[in-house]
Amino acid sequence: MDRIKVGVIGATGMVGQNYIRLLKNHPWFDVAYVAASPKSAGKKYADAVAGRWLMADPIPERIRNLVVEDANLVESAKGKCALAFSAVELDKDSVRKLEEEYAQSGIPVVSNNSAHRSTPDVPMIIPEVNPGHTELIRIQRKNRAWEKGLIAVKPNCSIQSYVTPLFALIEAGYRIQSVIVTTLQAVSGAGFPGPASLQMIDNIIPYIKGEEEKSELEPLRILGRLQDGRIIPDDSIQISAHCNRVPVIDGHMACVSVKFRDQKPQIEEILKIWKGFSSEPQRLKLPSAPDPAIIYRDELDRPQTRMDRDAGAGMAVSVGRLRQCPVFDYRFVGLSHNTVRGAAGGAILTAELLKAKGMV
Amino acid sequence: MDRIKVGVIGATGMVGQNYIRLLKNHPWFDVAYVAASPKSAGKKYADAVAGRWLMADPIPERIRNLVVEDANLVESAKGKCALAFSAVELDKDSVRKLEEEYAQSGIPVVSNNSAHRSTPDVPMIIPEVNPGHTELIRIQRKNRAWEKGLIAVKPNCSIQSYVTPLFALIEAGYRIQSVIVTTLQAVSGAGFPGPASLQMIDNIIPYIKGEEEKSELEPLRILGRLQDGRIIPDDSIQISAHCNRVPVIDGHMACVSVKFRDQKPQIEEILKIWKGFSSEPQRLKLPSAPDPAIIYRDELDRPQTRMDRDAGAGMAVSVGRLRQCPVFDYRFVGLSHNTVRGAAGGAILTAELLKAKGMV
Amino acid sequence: MDRIKVGVIGATGMVGQNYIRLLKNHPWFDVAYVAASPKSAGKKYADAVAGRWLMADPIPERIRNLVVEDANLVESAKGKCALAFSAVELDKDSVRKLEEEYAQSGIPVVSNNSAHRSTPDVPMIIPEVNPGHTELIRIQRKNRAWEKGLIAVKPNCSIQSYVTPLFALIEAGYRIQSVIVTTLQAVSGAGFPGPASLQMIDNIIPYIKGEEEKSELEPLRILGRLQDGRIIPDDSIQISAHCNRVPVIDGHMACVSVKFRDQKPQIEEILKIWKGFSSEPQRLKLPSAPDPAIIYRDELDRPQTRMDRDAGAGMAVSVGRLRQCPVFDYRFVGLSHNTVRGAAGGAILTAELLKAKGMV
Amino acid sequence: MDRIKVGVIGATGMVGQNYIRLLKNHPWFDVAYVAASPKSAGKKYADAVAGRWLMADPIPERIRNLVVEDANLVESAKGKCALAFSAVELDKDSVRKLEEEYAQSGIPVVSNNSAHRSTPDVPMIIPEVNPGHTELIRIQRKNRAWEKGLIAVKPNCSIQSYVTPLFALIEAGYRIQSVIVTTLQAVSGAGFPGPASLQMIDNIIPYIKGEEEKSELEPLRILGRLQDGRIIPDDSIQISAHCNRVPVIDGHMACVSVKFRDQKPQIEEILKIWKGFSSEPQRLKLPSAPDPAIIYRDELDRPQTRMDRDAGAGMAVSVGRLRQCPVFDYRFVGLSHNTVRGAAGGAILTAELLKAKGMV
Repeated sequence: MDRIKVGVIGATGMVGQNYIRLLKNHPWFDVAYVAASPKSAGKKYADAVAGRWLMADPIPERIRNLVVEDANLVESAKGKCALAFSAVELDKDSVRKLEEEYAQSGIPVVSNNSAHRSTPDVPMIIPEVNPGHTELIRIQRKNRAWEKGLIAVKPNCSIQSYVTPLFALIEAGYRIQSVIVTTLQAVSGAGFPGPASLQMIDNIIPYIKGEEEKSELEPLRILGRLQDGRIIPDDSIQISAHCNRVPVIDGHMACVSVKFRDQKPQIEEILKIWKGFSSEPQRLKLPSAPDPAIIYRDELDRPQTRMDRDAGAGMAVSVGRLRQCPVFDYRFVGLSHNTVRGAAGGAILTAELLKAKGMV
Repeated sequence: MDRIKVGVIGATGMVGQNYIRLLKNHPWFDVAYVAASPKSAGKKYADAVAGRWLMADPIPERIRNLVVEDANLVESAKGKCALAFSAVELDKDSVRKLEEEYAQSGIPVVSNNSAHRSTPDVPMIIPEVNPGHTELIRIQRKNRAWEKGLIAVKPNCSIQSYVTPLFALIEAGYRIQSVIVTTLQAVSGAGFPGPASLQMIDNIIPYIKGEEEKSELEPLRILGRLQDGRIIPDDSIQISAHCNRVPVIDGHMACVSVKFRDQKPQIEEILKIWKGFSSEPQRLKLPSAPDPAIIYRDELDRPQTRMDRDAGAGMAVSVGRLRQCPVFDYRFVGLSHNTVRGAAGGAILTAELLKAKGMV
Repeated sequence: MDRIKVGVIGATGMVGQNYIRLLKNHPWFDVAYVAASPKSAGKKYADAVAGRWLMADPIPERIRNLVVEDANLVESAKGKCALAFSAVELDKDSVRKLEEEYAQSGIPVVSNNSAHRSTPDVPMIIPEVNPGHTELIRIQRKNRAWEKGLIAVKPNCSIQSYVTPLFALIEAGYRIQSVIVTTLQAVSGAGFPGPASLQMIDNIIPYIKGEEEKSELEPLRILGRLQDGRIIPDDSIQISAHCNRVPVIDGHMACVSVKFRDQKPQIEEILKIWKGFSSEPQRLKLPSAPDPAIIYRDELDRPQTRMDRDAGAGMAVSVGRLRQCPVFDYRFVGLSHNTVRGAAGGAILTAELLKAKGMV
Repeated sequence: MDRIKVGVIGATGMVGQNYIRLLKNHPWFDVAYVAASPKSAGKKYADAVAGRWLMADPIPERIRNLVVEDANLVESAKGKCALAFSAVELDKDSVRKLEEEYAQSGIPVVSNNSAHRSTPDVPMIIPEVNPGHTELIRIQRKNRAWEKGLIAVKPNCSIQSYVTPLFALIEAGYRIQSVIVTTLQAVSGAGFPGPASLQMIDNIIPYIKGEEEKSELEPLRILGRLQDGRIIPDDSIQISAHCNRVPVIDGHMACVSVKFRDQKPQIEEILKIWKGFSSEPQRLKLPSAPDPAIIYRDELDRPQTRMDRDAGAGMAVSVGRLRQCPVFDYRFVGLSHNTVRGAAGGAILTAELLKAKGMV
């Protein structure tokens, strides 16, 4: 199979760099187009990111010499890529407009940005949880008269560590009523520069702007059902999220208390569900799909952020400490890698799903 | 007033060192007796802690030359101190026995150790919350035929950041039904050496042995009522605690969701209660009593661990981020200094309370 | 004695906030004037720094309500302060000009900024090392026809941990030929925001822009002699500095190898010199003068950054590990607090010296 | 080629675990024997390390079920392995004796331990620097009447970041006179548990027991020449090392000032030498040999610890910031991964070299 030429819009920022890194040696996708702000346009990629390449691995050799295009000149992408990953960092209106222009020009867009997360005809996808929401693309294309273009988005990085484990239980037939979750989120989640070292050494900041709202609302949309051409959020679940910034580089942890609605599973049943969990990305053997998707750690003190964030090449969710909750039914700890599963890696897996479904 | 001569049992360990540090220049108490394990006995204090003095301030000049006694030779304390702070680190049975021997010999003991926290006739005190539990001392003395001796204990460091703010609401007439709390606890809470740096740099450990049980049960005893010569725990409150070790030196933070039983206060009412909160230590103007006892931070992103742990000389509880909870009624963040308020400082305040009440 | 009314120019930045903090309760100086950029002008100080007050202590009550003046309107300072501390963060030309305008208007200026550090008639002072360089003020006033105004500066924060210990040896008659020093500098030295947490957690950056040049040249000027109305740097000493940014909040450490020129002291002699070192700030009993100025730590593993940075209220230099050097003569470790001794505190001590000498 | 069966002695400790991790999928070596203290003996490896497996990757599946042998029963190794890596953590006499018993029994031993580093007939090897010292094995075997057994050791982790770059210059004909080096060493270098988190968060410890002596002496032996059946250290070079423990997980950094003896190369010449450096491991294409062995970073602020420690799979030395030294000739920064290149990885490369030379 010839690899599909893909573009990265906003290629010079931190999320963009993660795309470049994760797409190196990708079996299906080949980065052939990089775009950024006008001031980077015209430079070789290596020159455009000189002094601000933040990845540990060096810039892939093939990408170093790609000439950066002006992201606003959507025409420049034509013929150069058949799929674009959006990592642009602009105000939401500009992002929405720009992503629509790319889609309008016939280029499918998978986006990290939050701008389109509540657009009614744009699916927000965690491939293991709601692969069926990709069906919304057909309505989207009809609404907008797009033939090949599309927009799909990934959700916020904060929710990846608890939504998949909860979904596994829901899918097994157990209805969830309430979730109280406290997140301990890595500094990389704030992008670059993000919090100053002066704020994070020997310190915790119990606040991340806008994060609790996203952490409470996005899961409901993802767990919602597609009906009448739109997503009906699952408002039977109540979620309360306390979001904290903690001094770790990568890895978002979640301490979760969960209450079931009607009947609750036994602990052994939950473990069995998690350990056996497999979903469409695994069945389709998508290149970036972790298998297993959920890793349950039996040790008393795991998952730990540094020790477990790279599980499944950063794409798996690590879970542990399942135990009774004196107030709700159960408690557990979840962990996922925020800049891989929670950002570029999650979007790449979504693109693989769209490809496997013939939408790209 | 002549200062009371006090002793520190277990004076060479980390908690013991904190006593030495905090009692320097204390207006009521004068450290005149230091005891430790037999291998330290007979040495000058400065020699006994050489190479393992962990405080930033140097050893107080007066203490350097005190000769360390063998803590097991309780007789050696007689006449040297009229009050002892226990910071011994032994198995629980040995601690219980040793503390009882000191009390038996006529020396009141205020302890940091958890050994006596569930002994029926031993009060576990947060001076702002249950000063009345000191009445249990009368029963204790009667039970044990002690005239001057007594044992009182302080609770676990993990609960100080949320019990006082919750108590303030209870005292104002609002009954609490459920609390789900996630703690982010400093490494100093584990004593020395505690977790290895290899485990804590760029990492979170979502487990602290025995901590969740203490964090759930101790508040109920402290909020309980004295009846028939013992404490009846307040079992109308359900608490679920998730305890995490995070890479900060000092300061335990708590993210709290709280549900009221019958009627709930308005946010403004809660703020008013907290900002106006004052209790017996403040009224008695005890030397170590913080005033205010609760500091509410209006900033969106406070309290923060390093910024706020020293509030009120490490004795105040800092609270912030009071807001609606989508699942329970309200949420907030609490913070207190674990090695001051949560350890030696809390015990010193308890001793001051006992002194003010004429029990020492 | 009535306290002198002082101003802080650039009062809202991090160095400015440190002035506000350190001058609280100062026995000689009373902050009566705060100035900052035009966008802060007209606001109360508390409002101007809302959301970016970085000190652990709250804003002093008296300062909260001071109205911030526009720093560029030098006239506004007249009558409001008889001395100004400059913490402005502008390009060097603007700083030079602004500080000169304040001096021209009759207000003595003591500055943290590096702009005037090589101006021939401006003394750069470490009060324990070159108090005599204040004599340059007389020439400065003559050159510039200033009667009451003056400009004095403090040197870079990186050099405080080794220049005073080296000076003590020079003053005792031992000439130094070569110094190779490696610094391990705290993130607060870079101001706010300074390095991102993403760059400093689990990382060392072996480069600080412009720092090695300052660390090598400034000591020579400070150790120089006043002759013909200017400072002749001591070019008999060669210094090589490797400057590193390390993940600590406060405290600059220096690992120093030193070679003497003619004769070298014995180790005991060096210890005697350091332990007995006292200089003009100590003799004059200036309010911020640490006494002792140099603290020698006998422990094998001290000074340590967090443990020793606050020694002498952050104004002392802690030294340890004096030992033979297989290449040069001796080696030692020095430590000083970069935002106290190395910034605002050092400037305040300089102002106290100028006051004691009748120049303010 | 059939893989050689190898053993790991001290397999349950931190260095032992690193061997297990690094030898997973090794093309030449197959771990078939694991030994540890008597209390682990008889257990499956997974059980023996339960709760103290410190690697991020899980225990390799094949190793989980290997039964741990008692390391003291050397006979148990016979027939099970043809090469043993020693990671035992005992007193030096016991280590020396144990390693000799294995060698005596016909099993070549490559050791991480420092016990044999100054034994006259034991070569201490950095494969890129002194591969020729393996010739000492012939004398060793003759001395000790060993036919197949041998002992070779790797040097201390602290020296890897500067010895190879210096050797490259020496090999190119430039004689070195003096080196003053300051190291910034990771906590993993101290093994587990190593320094407490209480000692390393927001702190630097400017002392590591015994490290400066090793850092100064071991390079001279490695750079020495084999003569009359023993290594004559190169005592023409003087080295002074300041060793610091800094709060990073992995990666030892060195700030180096170097003075040449007769003639000194130009900066361009040094860069050319480093960029072109290749040695026997590269020529022999040993499986663990990094290529290039030295990576020069042109960026102003590199190498950085977290960003560069994994270069060349943790086996390369990263160098940067080559510049004039105002006191000596040049300065640079070196970095190497202390638990890979500086420990297990370095020993594995040495074993590969011995294998390629037919000595194993």
